[in-house]
Amino acid sequence: MTNTQLSLIQIDNYGPWTVTPEPRREMDLQTLQSRLFADLAQFVGSRDGYVFFTRFDNMVAVTNGLDGDDHELMQESIGNRYPVSISVGVGVDSTPIDALETATAGLQRAGSAQDGDRREVFAGTTLTERDRTPTDVQIAHFDVNDATSKYTDRLNEFDSFIEIEQGYASLMRHLREERGALSFFVGGDNIISVCPDMDESAYRSAIDHVEREVGVELKVGVGVADNVQEAGIAAKHALEECRHRGTVVEMDVPRPDVGLAED
Amino acid sequence: MTNTQLSLIQIDNYGPWTVTPEPRREMDLQTLQSRLFADLAQFVGSRDGYVFFTRFDNMVAVTNGLDGDDHELMQESIGNRYPVSISVGVGVDSTPIDALETATAGLQRAGSAQDGDRREVFAGTTLTERDRTPTDVQIAHFDVNDATSKYTDRLNEFDSFIEIEQGYASLMRHLREERGALSFFVGGDNIISVCPDMDESAYRSAIDHVEREVGVELKVGVGVADNVQEAGIAAKHALEECRHRGTVVEMDVPRPDVGLAED
Amino acid sequence: MTNTQLSLIQIDNYGPWTVTPEPRREMDLQTLQSRLFADLAQFVGSRDGYVFFTRFDNMVAVTNGLDGDDHELMQESIGNRYPVSISVGVGVDSTPIDALETATAGLQRAGSAQDGDRREVFAGTTLTERDRTPTDVQIAHFDVNDATSKYTDRLNEFDSFIEIEQGYASLMRHLREERGALSFFVGGDNIISVCPDMDESAYRSAIDHVEREVGVELKVGVGVADNVQEAGIAAKHALEECRHRGTVVEMDVPRPDVGLAED
Amino acid sequence: MTNTQLSLIQIDNYGPWTVTPEPRREMDLQTLQSRLFADLAQFVGSRDGYVFFTRFDNMVAVTNGLDGDDHELMQESIGNRYPVSISVGVGVDSTPIDALETATAGLQRAGSAQDGDRREVFAGTTLTERDRTPTDVQIAHFDVNDATSKYTDRLNEFDSFIEIEQGYASLMRHLREERGALSFFVGGDNIISVCPDMDESAYRSAIDHVEREVGVELKVGVGVADNVQEAGIAAKHALEECRHRGTVVEMDVPRPDVGLAED
Repeated sequence: MTNTQLSLIQIDNYGPWTVTPEPRREMDLQTLQSRLFADLAQFVGSRDGYVFFTRFDNMVAVTNGLDGDDHELMQESIGNRYPVSISVGVGVDSTPIDALETATAGLQRAGSAQDGDRREVFAGTTLTERDRTPTDVQIAHFDVNDATSKYTDRLNEFDSFIEIEQGYASLMRHLREERGALSFFVGGDNIISVCPDMDESAYRSAIDHVEREVGVELKVGVGVADNVQEAGIAAKHALEECRHRGTVVEMDVPRPDVGLAED
Repeated sequence: MTNTQLSLIQIDNYGPWTVTPEPRREMDLQTLQSRLFADLAQFVGSRDGYVFFTRFDNMVAVTNGLDGDDHELMQESIGNRYPVSISVGVGVDSTPIDALETATAGLQRAGSAQDGDRREVFAGTTLTERDRTPTDVQIAHFDVNDATSKYTDRLNEFDSFIEIEQGYASLMRHLREERGALSFFVGGDNIISVCPDMDESAYRSAIDHVEREVGVELKVGVGVADNVQEAGIAAKHALEECRHRGTVVEMDVPRPDVGLAED
Repeated sequence: MTNTQLSLIQIDNYGPWTVTPEPRREMDLQTLQSRLFADLAQFVGSRDGYVFFTRFDNMVAVTNGLDGDDHELMQESIGNRYPVSISVGVGVDSTPIDALETATAGLQRAGSAQDGDRREVFAGTTLTERDRTPTDVQIAHFDVNDATSKYTDRLNEFDSFIEIEQGYASLMRHLREERGALSFFVGGDNIISVCPDMDESAYRSAIDHVEREVGVELKVGVGVADNVQEAGIAAKHALEECRHRGTVVEMDVPRPDVGLAED
Repeated sequence: MTNTQLSLIQIDNYGPWTVTPEPRREMDLQTLQSRLFADLAQFVGSRDGYVFFTRFDNMVAVTNGLDGDDHELMQESIGNRYPVSISVGVGVDSTPIDALETATAGLQRAGSAQDGDRREVFAGTTLTERDRTPTDVQIAHFDVNDATSKYTDRLNEFDSFIEIEQGYASLMRHLREERGALSFFVGGDNIISVCPDMDESAYRSAIDHVEREVGVELKVGVGVADNVQEAGIAAKHALEECRHRGTVVEMDVPRPDVGLAED
């Protein structure tokens, strides 16, 4: 059974900072946001976690394997190198949306995102090592069928972008409402979803829904492990299987009689 | 009248590179994408342009003020410092979507995004200095009313994110279909649109549409200049005016009898 | 007794790469070198190690606490995000220069720095957890007395720089020849030395030597721990003690009867 | 005749900032310093200038071609993205050390490097376009003969480093004292010097001096242009000529009867 640890990372007092004493150059804000995200991606990624850029002032991370000290070191390092600081809330649950609910609530109790006094809060409790299991994290890596030939090489970039966005918005709503799963666009035509236990029919169902609702065709690879890096790499390999075999869903997950498939 | 110069920046052969010889660590891809975007934001931004991350392997930039040599220097510098290279297409038109159409078509003619041989192409013609005018670029900076109190401090982060995404998707489609304008989410609850000549009623109309379609309330500041940096800063200041005056649309644009408003 | 783990990090085939097919823009090389170093500083630093930029194509790191898997992950991440790759040699010894000798020899045996075929080598054996002790790493943090009032605010920057360089060159040679210690300029007027067991008189001796040889006055704080991050922070605090008390040497090291001083 | 524009870039109040409220993690300081330098290298480099890291809290740049607005934009962008700010002094003179003297003095008059109140000063006057000539900047690019086979592949890295440092220290003092030239180690076995008008015998003289004083053998390529990027690339190509022809000095500089050599 899945047991996802999610961390919500929020820049302290960012809205006011961006316009005080007056509005700052947009390209400097874009640069700061992207590089702060990249630093978090490297820190968390080197401990086998994932960070998704989400809204940039609020970022969602899958952090099975990182403890309180890891989170606090991450906050200290950002505080030393950026003109802003970050607060963090953590939650753990078999359903990703509920883990994020806990993480967000912990932060909200500590103070508003625009509270001039709230700085570098850390709220919540991380998974202990002994409570971790090989099925804690389930990752689904989706991409759009033939995106390059259907969109990138044919339409102007914005119309390609609108198509991909439509597919993303549809999948994101469906998986959150039906499964409590969280989906993130990660560039190109790729979407990564953090899922609870879901079987092949649940994925087929999501893919059918998106095709019916917006006409975008997806395929998916799924992986499971005690950490998101390993589950994610298994999902990527499974997606390559879809490409080679012409299939729509490939699952690299444990079968009761075999044990956890290796990536 | 607007005369927007848009540049499409595309990473060469990126899809294949990300899985050759086998899939790469996702956090390394996220880091590379974000830092490449940040570098382009700095380069273009320091010449008074804007870059939007869009799909990360394909990025849209407003480049009034940058010429062919500037674009080629940008390509050379990326080629020296990253394991990938970029191709660029440029187009100029009073309607942004048409400028992007030209930019995209120029690139597509040179070869597919996944063409193993296509590297560091530059296609298209930039605006000459003498053809530039003070009304070439119109920028609208939208944000969501009371995002922090309505969403960030109340819902879990993913449900806040879904609300913002809904508002973005609705605005993006409406403005593209009605006006040929291009809209980009830039973090937090902010959307920047690159527009043709539009008056206050056109903006009210877009805001009403989004509220009716998805229930998200926006406000907007608009600026005009011969370059996007100046138009964008004027738009930000106009948005601050909305905040102080409680209004929905503020336009810092030239009136026939007054000349171009200063930012 | 000290037991220093040193890692030599070398960019593969860098010399030839910088001039193939022809010489690259110097500022792009400077940017690549500095950012690659910064990434290594973050990776190693987040595991309580230190990296010194040294010659940029060859960098020396103190890596007590990092194992083979950590080094290989570091190499994989660099290989995914840069147009160059890195090879690593590791050595462990109570005398730092001997640890570095082992690290360098391991790499040299695998192939020349400019061997077109040598890529991403990892040579050597890291310390096992059970062999680590609280006195493994001794760090000395030197700075120049009154550098700001004597140099920075009075001489032109290059003449200030020459003075600091003289002090560094003198200290570096003395400590290497007398003690097998390795000294690195880290910016401003600061030098960090990785030392074997040395007592207060050994440090006074080094400081006197530098003053006699080149007329530059230093002071120093010294710390000891099982990892360089902790030893280094103790050394920084000890240096602050020098500042407050007007002393020349402050040692935050274990006394036989007391146990290891806490930082 | 040379006419070098030098800018001194100094981080405001850095010393105190690094220890307030208490000493910061060394690897975070190294990361901040290196990335700030890299950003300046990109900004200045994209305008055909050079920045040298020097002491990191004080950096020397050759900025022929950059005006006051360029410098102020550079300061604004750093101020928006880092927890520190920078002050700048500019000077112009046919002798580099005198240009730097002017630059430094302008900054010093505005306030101490550790003055809690001095922030983002800009002192001095940049070259006007009409006063620029094709011989304004003379660049010499030195490297150590056979560094890889003599040092990198034979000695341990620190002893290689000591040899290179010796060569650098000797050259740096000689050229400053004899010629008012400024020399900077730029990684590997490379040194770049910013020179006044110097002929071949002056370079041979410097190379002989270093060989006699410390036993390190150098070769050099020299270039001249109205900006350092062009002079520097010409110097790099000239150095490649030394490599191919087995010579010690190659000068790509204008001859009275021929006009400026093309790079």
